[in-house]
Amino acid sequence: MSFVLSLEAAWRDAESLLCVGLDPDPARIPASLRERGDAIFEFCRAIVDASAQYACAFKPQIAYFAAARAEEALEALIEHIHRAHPGKPVVLDAKRGDIGATAERYAIEAFERYRADAVTVNPYMGFDSIEPWLAWKDRGVLLLCRTSNPGGSDLQALDVGGERLFERVARLAAQRWNTNGQLGLVVGATFPAELVRVRELAGELPLLVPGIGAQGGDIEATVRAGGSRMLVNSSRAILYASGGEDFAEAAARVARQTRDALRAAHGARR
Amino acid sequence: MSFVLSLEAAWRDAESLLCVGLDPDPARIPASLRERGDAIFEFCRAIVDASAQYACAFKPQIAYFAAARAEEALEALIEHIHRAHPGKPVVLDAKRGDIGATAERYAIEAFERYRADAVTVNPYMGFDSIEPWLAWKDRGVLLLCRTSNPGGSDLQALDVGGERLFERVARLAAQRWNTNGQLGLVVGATFPAELVRVRELAGELPLLVPGIGAQGGDIEATVRAGGSRMLVNSSRAILYASGGEDFAEAAARVARQTRDALRAAHGARR
Repeated sequence: MSFVLSLEAAWRDAESLLCVGLDPDPARIPASLRERGDAIFEFCRAIVDASAQYACAFKPQIAYFAAARAEEALEALIEHIHRAHPGKPVVLDAKRGDIGATAERYAIEAFERYRADAVTVNPYMGFDSIEPWLAWKDRGVLLLCRTSNPGGSDLQALDVGGERLFERVARLAAQRWNTNGQLGLVVGATFPAELVRVRELAGELPLLVPGIGAQGGDIEATVRAGGSRMLVNSSRAILYASGGEDFAEAAARVARQTRDALRAAHGARR
Repeated sequence: MSFVLSLEAAWRDAESLLCVGLDPDPARIPASLRERGDAIFEFCRAIVDASAQYACAFKPQIAYFAAARAEEALEALIEHIHRAHPGKPVVLDAKRGDIGATAERYAIEAFERYRADAVTVNPYMGFDSIEPWLAWKDRGVLLLCRTSNPGGSDLQALDVGGERLFERVARLAAQRWNTNGQLGLVVGATFPAELVRVRELAGELPLLVPGIGAQGGDIEATVRAGGSRMLVNSSRAILYASGGEDFAEAAARVARQTRDALRAAHGARR
């Protein structure tokens, strides 16, 4: 089954646009877990199990695992998600970008080693840096388009002949580059007007939208701008809803509230 | 000591502009090593020891290690380079790009876990995705500018108001973004005219130049275009100079020839 079809099933089954981001910062893992050798895995597993019913997908951020020499925890975590929560796609947030044989190695890392259903990819190197990923026909590739950080404007907002660079990326991803329907885009919730514009250009493409929660993006504005084919990501607001031993319950509560706010915003939009 | 000063010492000591790229493809490792559990490490170590006297630096490509679950081999390899060949900078080719706390995690991965002296970084997310790396004052950050692949033109060659996107990146890296003299640029040898232009804009910045050897870039044209402050990278032409048991001797021979060709081109230019 293609990534887009899996995602559509997950949206339907969970009635949720919430994607739970898994960015385990060792310094913020509750004390009771921190002593354990598998603290990162156990922390993320508890968050996943507590929030799964409110989420359509999970998004582990590989940098947190790599900095902690915790590749095995990431492998085990994604395996756990596939086994315990089948049908919830896993987006590996890796923002890779390279060419030819090297891009293929990164695809093997993401799709075979970690068994991710989709991956985030940086488009700066152009289509021949994206094409190698597309050989895995049942997986998705989410291209950075308009990122949620202020400095995203440095290059992405430059005028490239009547449109901004991120608009060009959106058009290429919706048309010429999307040779097998595997592409989606990453667009920050912190710029709703630009999210509207990407949605116009990208048609039905799935959008991964970080920036609500800790980064301050507004849920209603996001849903008004981006519609229903979105993975609206929240990481820190859920992971660290409580720093205490009740972290999983607190994460579930914030995940449910976020899902409900997304639902309400979606209902108001219709 | 800053990365640029270390690199200047390495250029001087080795009288070489050659950077040896370490992209270990398991399928191309000689049969006698392939059976061993540490084949990737041993292959790269042999290449490093055979080519070190002809090289100013080494550039491991992390994708090859990650696809093979060989992070420990990469740690051991960089440790070996620092110990056995002190003064040869290690550039970790990772092309990372992310923001805030996540960028910091990637910097911990590259600079603390792997102890790289410099790293390649993708500029698409703008200055606030570069700034976190600069907290490691003695390390270098080489930004993708004009990459060696044909598709690099898809975005990098777009006109952004009287200059192309890669020219804008070169100007930003040479000026506003280079707050502590830590930046360099990645420019493919496959586009010598664009290398000339980057050198004009980037002044004395070190340039990492892939694309000679297997990718077909011409050594004389590269040195004429880019001058002497370059890391001219060759990976496959050296690593796989022989597929047999004499791979290390063959690698040394090609490394020496490449260094000599770079020297001759440099001499002809003066």
